[in-house]
Amino acid sequence: MSRFLRVNMTDLTTRFEDVPEKYQHLGGRGLTSAITCAEVPPTCHPLGPNNKVTFAAGIVSGTAAPTAGRLSVGGKSPLTETIKEANAGGVAATKLARLGIKAIIVEGQPEEKGKFWVLKVDRNGAQLQQASDEWLGKGLYQTYPLLFSEFGKRAGIIGIGVAGEKLMANAGVCVNDPENRPARYAGRGGLGAVMGSKRLKALILDDEGGSAVPIANKEVFDAGRKKVADALREHDITKPGGTLNTYGTSALINVINEAGALPTHNFRDGRFSGADRISGETLRETIQKRGGVGLSGHRCSPGCIIECSNVYPNADGTELVSVQEYESVWSLGANCGIDDLDVIGELIHLCNDYGLDTIEAGVTIGVAMDAGLASFGDGQRAIELMHEIGRGTPLGHVLGNGAAVTAKVFGVVRCPVVKGQGMPAYEPRAIKGIGVTYATSTMGADHTAGYTIAPEILGVSGKVDQFIVEKADMARSWQHTTAFLDSTGHCLFIAFAIQDIASGFEGMVEECNGVLGTNWTVDDVGRIGGEIMAMEREFNEGAGFTRAHDRVPEFMTYEKLPPHEVVFDVSDEELDRVHST
Amino acid sequence: MSRFLRVNMTDLTTRFEDVPEKYQHLGGRGLTSAITCAEVPPTCHPLGPNNKVTFAAGIVSGTAAPTAGRLSVGGKSPLTETIKEANAGGVAATKLARLGIKAIIVEGQPEEKGKFWVLKVDRNGAQLQQASDEWLGKGLYQTYPLLFSEFGKRAGIIGIGVAGEKLMANAGVCVNDPENRPARYAGRGGLGAVMGSKRLKALILDDEGGSAVPIANKEVFDAGRKKVADALREHDITKPGGTLNTYGTSALINVINEAGALPTHNFRDGRFSGADRISGETLRETIQKRGGVGLSGHRCSPGCIIECSNVYPNADGTELVSVQEYESVWSLGANCGIDDLDVIGELIHLCNDYGLDTIEAGVTIGVAMDAGLASFGDGQRAIELMHEIGRGTPLGHVLGNGAAVTAKVFGVVRCPVVKGQGMPAYEPRAIKGIGVTYATSTMGADHTAGYTIAPEILGVSGKVDQFIVEKADMARSWQHTTAFLDSTGHCLFIAFAIQDIASGFEGMVEECNGVLGTNWTVDDVGRIGGEIMAMEREFNEGAGFTRAHDRVPEFMTYEKLPPHEVVFDVSDEELDRVHST
Repeated sequence: MSRFLRVNMTDLTTRFEDVPEKYQHLGGRGLTSAITCAEVPPTCHPLGPNNKVTFAAGIVSGTAAPTAGRLSVGGKSPLTETIKEANAGGVAATKLARLGIKAIIVEGQPEEKGKFWVLKVDRNGAQLQQASDEWLGKGLYQTYPLLFSEFGKRAGIIGIGVAGEKLMANAGVCVNDPENRPARYAGRGGLGAVMGSKRLKALILDDEGGSAVPIANKEVFDAGRKKVADALREHDITKPGGTLNTYGTSALINVINEAGALPTHNFRDGRFSGADRISGETLRETIQKRGGVGLSGHRCSPGCIIECSNVYPNADGTELVSVQEYESVWSLGANCGIDDLDVIGELIHLCNDYGLDTIEAGVTIGVAMDAGLASFGDGQRAIELMHEIGRGTPLGHVLGNGAAVTAKVFGVVRCPVVKGQGMPAYEPRAIKGIGVTYATSTMGADHTAGYTIAPEILGVSGKVDQFIVEKADMARSWQHTTAFLDSTGHCLFIAFAIQDIASGFEGMVEECNGVLGTNWTVDDVGRIGGEIMAMEREFNEGAGFTRAHDRVPEFMTYEKLPPHEVVFDVSDEELDRVHST
Repeated sequence: MSRFLRVNMTDLTTRFEDVPEKYQHLGGRGLTSAITCAEVPPTCHPLGPNNKVTFAAGIVSGTAAPTAGRLSVGGKSPLTETIKEANAGGVAATKLARLGIKAIIVEGQPEEKGKFWVLKVDRNGAQLQQASDEWLGKGLYQTYPLLFSEFGKRAGIIGIGVAGEKLMANAGVCVNDPENRPARYAGRGGLGAVMGSKRLKALILDDEGGSAVPIANKEVFDAGRKKVADALREHDITKPGGTLNTYGTSALINVINEAGALPTHNFRDGRFSGADRISGETLRETIQKRGGVGLSGHRCSPGCIIECSNVYPNADGTELVSVQEYESVWSLGANCGIDDLDVIGELIHLCNDYGLDTIEAGVTIGVAMDAGLASFGDGQRAIELMHEIGRGTPLGHVLGNGAAVTAKVFGVVRCPVVKGQGMPAYEPRAIKGIGVTYATSTMGADHTAGYTIAPEILGVSGKVDQFIVEKADMARSWQHTTAFLDSTGHCLFIAFAIQDIASGFEGMVEECNGVLGTNWTVDDVGRIGGEIMAMEREFNEGAGFTRAHDRVPEFMTYEKLPPHEVVFDVSDEELDRVHST
């Protein structure tokens, strides 16, 4: 019987609790959002004592379900001030599930400043211990090895970098990958700063002697996971040797650039002249050419059969960074006018090292370039700006708080954010549906909230023209399905396969039924996802959000985007339709 | 027949327009808010091309009505994102009225950056001319003399300092006082940055050859102004030799300190050990002792019969600054733990010079001290921080954007703002009614929006206990009356007299009737004020504000304030009652 672990940072106590009946069928995002809604006052200060940060594995995490190693982290976001769930790959979700812990809820705040703590969890229980000064104030590429030598190489570590220690709103939550790199991030929304505000440097999960995740109906579960695996192995995007496995997510660079929707120079253009130099094809070729540790088709978490990650080498074959993926390469590359994968790799490395979300970091640097702090394309200056964050200078504090704060501080009107969160790598002026998702998601601009790029660009579940403005129904449907998927523990990338292959979709539901003993049908997916979003939206309303916040930035409504010379012309009424039903 | 002057900064044109019928009976705040509501999209970016900044004299400004020289400046605020009206003394309102201009509406935005413009208005018309480089990038104590030598010493100048040029959200709008100091500010809410975003450095008003303000019914008007003047001359607070005339507004330092409500050390305490050294009594004594240019009972605008301003000398008798007033002395003094009037005077001088609101500047430095950027009480470091703003360093940009941004950047939870605007000099935990005004005003934390200190501390219109939490009716009533008063052009300080002396209140209404030819009664004051607030509130709702924003900062609900050891315990229901009727 899995339990909750409640950690009180005010009095530094931990206790295990039975899982209340109402939470029994929840996992991942559904669970973190339900706990946040039930226990966090929507108007609380995100960095104050009344916020909580919750960690939960998905419903099928830790089982034999394929590509299901996502860890959800939830709370009130210091970046967006909305409810927030961000999820990461890495090894932690599996270990949490095998420790029989459905969620870890961290609450309160020590009065004393300066000291940090780590939470050690193993089969014998949970203890807080004071963090060594050695583990603080430095890059995670230094800190994580120290933690592994202290707690053993089997540990799953959920930690924060200096950005989180310094309470920066772009601080992500880091999870080690299968080779123990500090490389997988629940990045978006600054939940690392919430950990920092609670003076919790890391959670250490040791599942040695842990037990298998209980499965209510093994037959149903096994049938389901086989259907999901079959779909993943069949679909061109997800199969072995398929698009993601071969080129990684950076396969999108050329595709989105061709569509005129690759945001370039802080969202001034939809095409980047240097796209070819940072594309997935170039990435793969570079990795292959350089040899050494170079690896594409790398796995970010145990049990993944897509394997879209990579390890990118320096020219001499030594390791530079894992992972060069589409969002990071775009944000720190095209968006900043930088077309050198080595420079981009260094910038990603610095994000991992300091504990930052790469999307927000790149959007922030783009805004800083617009403010005149650097020239577009100046990679060395971009690296210097990242070091400002690491050092915690005043400028670094600005940049570490993300794009909206940076724009505010320097008076930049062209700030590509929704609800304070930087936009990902798809221009809403050129791909209308993703703009609808950005505007209406419960968590600010977030492509993963409802990835309409799948139909609008990739033709998944039927091709829909990117310029059509009637996208409310599509955006709603994708958001609801995603809210369910984010609760299962599956990686969002299974969506490509299961949205095209009906048996895969059924398989996902059957896996859940197998684990939980429920009798959900495929029709329940949208209903349950819709209920999760409705709950999240109610939190946001309590926090003061209205439809006036469900909008893209004003400049996108009057500034035309080349090459298609389009503005964002989805009507307010269409945007409001997403949540009207 | 007075007209509107519309200034289009996109194509650099000006044109005079007839005043539409619906605006005929409006002035000051009522007029700037009506124009903002009608012409500015509530969701627009405050620094983008779709915001507008409007300047309007009050209904009776420019007439013989006493103490009626207020100039209203309105638009969407970059500090609060709400609608905003801030008003200033100085000479501009009178000149605007005598030029027959009911409002100047500045709209659009030049595409070209770097260049600034000045708008010259005289009886012959209005022209835009490019600002000389000499007038830019330097302190207003240098720039204003250059402008007077260019445009003549009779000019009324409405200008911005470097803070406005640099688009900082704490940039105020400066008006010269009767001796042409850059010393009177429509400070709150950052409307100077809106001017800056339109690249408008200054408005130059030359009323030579201007005509008297038309008065519809001179008899009614004269009767009214006599009643107002009599009330002002009779009331202990406003009369010649009365409290304000003798000690200035700083008379409140000892009073509010005694009440345990003088926010000290970034709102950690309600009493300041150094209060006596910065009190109105000490201020007066210092001015008298030092001689030279020293002057208390100074007039901030023509026609004022209260004369609460002062000119504060250095120890050698040379002029340091005008004006040391309560809010500034508190914010840059007690709130920062600084108890030296010379240091405070220097800080006020720097605010005037760089073009900053003193309240926001002091609250910001208090937050910065909480963040560890300076020690409480370290005046020299506070002066250095002000210079960072003037130089436009990254840290200066942070501080120049006010307390909320500074708190966000440095992760300070204890941030005393409502809707992004720093709280003035009265602790809401210790004086509940002013907290209700802060929370529910249409413009963020603003004591002038509904000055319940008058009854709660000073006993004006009947003494009400400061700790009673049922204050919604009082706060609403004061806010409605104030919205009317802010439309007349009168200084808010006439409220002390006219709230106690009924004939004075009648006189204010009769003055308006005399000018406008209306037949308002005293009962219309609350109604008209309520209509103004309802309109402003509708704008804010369109901008995304809800009751969740009508709250004091969360920390004040759980952190006890010495010496009374009180939290802010007015219920949400009571706060929501302010706008429920």
